[in-house]
Amino acid sequence: MDPRALYRPSLGLLTDLYQLTMAAGYWKLGMADREAIFHLFARKPPFGGGWAVAAGLGPALALLEGWGFDRADLDYLATLTGNDGGPLFEEGFLRHLEGLRFSCDVDAVPEGTLVGPPAPLLRIQGPLLQAQILETPLLTILNFQTLIATKAARIALAAGDDPVLEFGLRRAQGIDGGLSASRAAYLGGAAATSNVLAGRLFDIPVKGTHAHSWVMVFEDEPAAFAHYADALPNNCVFLVDTYDTVEGVHRAVAAGRALRARGHELAGVRLDSGDLGALAVEARRILDAGGFPDAAVVASNDLDEHRIAALKAAGAPIGVWGVGTRLVTAHDQPSLGGVYKLGAVRDADGAWQPRIKLSENPVKVSIPGCLQVRRHVDPETGFFAGDTIWSAHHGGPPAAQGPDDHDLLVPCFRGGQRVDEPVPLAVSRARARASVQRLAPADRALSPEGAYPVSLAPPLAAARAALVARAGKGDPA
Amino acid sequence: MDPRALYRPSLGLLTDLYQLTMAAGYWKLGMADREAIFHLFARKPPFGGGWAVAAGLGPALALLEGWGFDRADLDYLATLTGNDGGPLFEEGFLRHLEGLRFSCDVDAVPEGTLVGPPAPLLRIQGPLLQAQILETPLLTILNFQTLIATKAARIALAAGDDPVLEFGLRRAQGIDGGLSASRAAYLGGAAATSNVLAGRLFDIPVKGTHAHSWVMVFEDEPAAFAHYADALPNNCVFLVDTYDTVEGVHRAVAAGRALRARGHELAGVRLDSGDLGALAVEARRILDAGGFPDAAVVASNDLDEHRIAALKAAGAPIGVWGVGTRLVTAHDQPSLGGVYKLGAVRDADGAWQPRIKLSENPVKVSIPGCLQVRRHVDPETGFFAGDTIWSAHHGGPPAAQGPDDHDLLVPCFRGGQRVDEPVPLAVSRARARASVQRLAPADRALSPEGAYPVSLAPPLAAARAALVARAGKGDPA
Repeated sequence: MDPRALYRPSLGLLTDLYQLTMAAGYWKLGMADREAIFHLFARKPPFGGGWAVAAGLGPALALLEGWGFDRADLDYLATLTGNDGGPLFEEGFLRHLEGLRFSCDVDAVPEGTLVGPPAPLLRIQGPLLQAQILETPLLTILNFQTLIATKAARIALAAGDDPVLEFGLRRAQGIDGGLSASRAAYLGGAAATSNVLAGRLFDIPVKGTHAHSWVMVFEDEPAAFAHYADALPNNCVFLVDTYDTVEGVHRAVAAGRALRARGHELAGVRLDSGDLGALAVEARRILDAGGFPDAAVVASNDLDEHRIAALKAAGAPIGVWGVGTRLVTAHDQPSLGGVYKLGAVRDADGAWQPRIKLSENPVKVSIPGCLQVRRHVDPETGFFAGDTIWSAHHGGPPAAQGPDDHDLLVPCFRGGQRVDEPVPLAVSRARARASVQRLAPADRALSPEGAYPVSLAPPLAAARAALVARAGKGDPA
Repeated sequence: MDPRALYRPSLGLLTDLYQLTMAAGYWKLGMADREAIFHLFARKPPFGGGWAVAAGLGPALALLEGWGFDRADLDYLATLTGNDGGPLFEEGFLRHLEGLRFSCDVDAVPEGTLVGPPAPLLRIQGPLLQAQILETPLLTILNFQTLIATKAARIALAAGDDPVLEFGLRRAQGIDGGLSASRAAYLGGAAATSNVLAGRLFDIPVKGTHAHSWVMVFEDEPAAFAHYADALPNNCVFLVDTYDTVEGVHRAVAAGRALRARGHELAGVRLDSGDLGALAVEARRILDAGGFPDAAVVASNDLDEHRIAALKAAGAPIGVWGVGTRLVTAHDQPSLGGVYKLGAVRDADGAWQPRIKLSENPVKVSIPGCLQVRRHVDPETGFFAGDTIWSAHHGGPPAAQGPDDHDLLVPCFRGGQRVDEPVPLAVSRARARASVQRLAPADRALSPEGAYPVSLAPPLAAARAALVARAGKGDPA
């Protein structure tokens, strides 16, 4: 999905102001076109898990293709002032922005790829000014979609072979919070969404039947079910908990019989409150006894991967899982915390200089260089054995451990020209589903003992340690 | 902000599929224009607090003004199938959607108004089909913006007179997750945003200076500060923690002296890691000793209302607060959980029939009727004394307890025509700031002993109890 097809304004200003003030600084100092390398990565896996599912690249690359500033953007920037009341930006800088076209190289991990933080999801190499401004929109898109795709993959893993339906639009974070959540949820493993616009824009299957309000509108629940069956006979999943759930299932069976007499089938019942495990057993029993062994028991109500896993472990006969709030908001960790760090910059002589950001917290010390990620595949099991982050500036690739070892970042842009083929969302979804199955069983756990193993190639680790030692003395180069 | 100015596609499909299948059912049964009343409300205040700040109404009303389905929407709906492979929707229903124009009455709480759940934020009265479809987009917009405005109001309350800057775009939930978060954060009390597009679209002040990457690009930190001061002399807040924070403050003072010699002033330093309280004391001391008593100490790094309150209580000399992830994602409670419930529907004879949704959980039992919220204002203190939810169908308004008592929901649409004046965002922001100050001090606490007092008018409470008793027997009417 190209954000330009969704949004009317130019998205050039979709960035933090400090990116533009830094850009103005680089321009003023004659450094706008100084070549730099930035990496976008998450420092650790979300949700207490060991891995993430890369997502958001399609929309991010589409944004880069159309990136730039229009007249209204520049007119707005010209109105901004500094602390002396004078203009914040010089006219020459605004003219520079006006003529700007994206001209960077981008290498990135395809959507649906399983990744082990802190491996980079994306590397951008090109003019410092451009790469700097693009930090924010790239993070906005990749952070959120990777977060939600990962949550969806965890939920789908817990649900096993059962379909997961994403129902979250009403609790999503704004309109496109909902649209992009639906996209990422499907990519990560959801089977369908309730969000009709997302269905249309992204070609995602859509699902839905009726709410409590339908039942409340009619004189009683049997009438409500009968009327729904009359109107939409090929879409009958009755929501049975408006008044009394067990009674509701009996009424659904009665409506199902009338439906069958007309040549249609009851698709299922939905439980949306109460003790879902116990109610599912009772609903299953009533459906089976009533002659509807193929009608599904659908469950919803604040579900997530942990609740689904617990219900499955307890043997709840639930066949379809409706997941909303906790999926689209990533309820237990609503941000991935991905960052975008300078890895190297060319000096005035054109030589690459590695760069590092220090921190008292070792996980926050950045990784210098021009990074790539080598995935090692166990030749015997076919499982992903672990990844090695390596730098083309520091010793090159690690030795292959097997014939299926491969690098994860693939070329997307060269000199501002798109060089990859856009990938259909369903293909990325299939990749995500297959990737999770390539994890060793211990790594696949929702709360693994350790994260999926990711290490630095020894020459890169040594170069980083040397930079840390020098930077600690205030001399990063 | 009108969503039509932001989004290219028609937003008619921005809803859950089940709203459209129910709509098809109402149409099929000849009930599309049956009049109904729905209320949108949060069941309880977010974040363990006692109140919320209403937000999102402006965009929601703009969406209603332009609401409808275009040809592409209907073509898409025509492709959907049911469980027998046949079309889900009849052609007649799609033609009905094609001719649809918004024709409801809407009454709602103006943005920036302090509200006490479960008081309704919005009431819609009109054709059942329309009101049903609009449930999802109204919830999407009002839930999220109310959540973020409330979070911002709590953060601003903790920060007292200090400005709060919203820096969250990179961690926001998609592009418009970021745009609408910036809008709601400003409405709730933030002083500015880093999000330049939000600044342009919503007329919000924008702020920002430089990131770690600026410092990392140059040969060392003194050079980085000096270059920034050269390029942007009227926008100097130096980020001092790239290598060693205390050393960074000394370097900022040195750069500030050079800046002053050129006729400009150092605006401040920013701390983004470490022990913010201790570092702020040290930074303040160095700035004061260096001749910069007016330069601000700006703090950022995973701040929220609780961390700000703790730093303020400890006397940290921080003058400006940069808040990102925890504000724009509402980190500790990323969804408001607002709902939209049927209050009444006309029967075939045109008489209003109250409606209720039962639940084992008393807080989830809905409130029947045609609701309004009476705010009682203490005549002596001017503080908000509490609210009474009353129903025009059940006994009318409660007696005034003072001359400033007033109703919160105001007319916005009559028969599909907009009747209110759009309110500038800055006016809504001022209302929010003033409203919080009208809370009694005990109610203003971030973790109050009890929620802001909201009760049902006695006739409404009695009518609800009678409906609960009847509905428990499966006879809601």
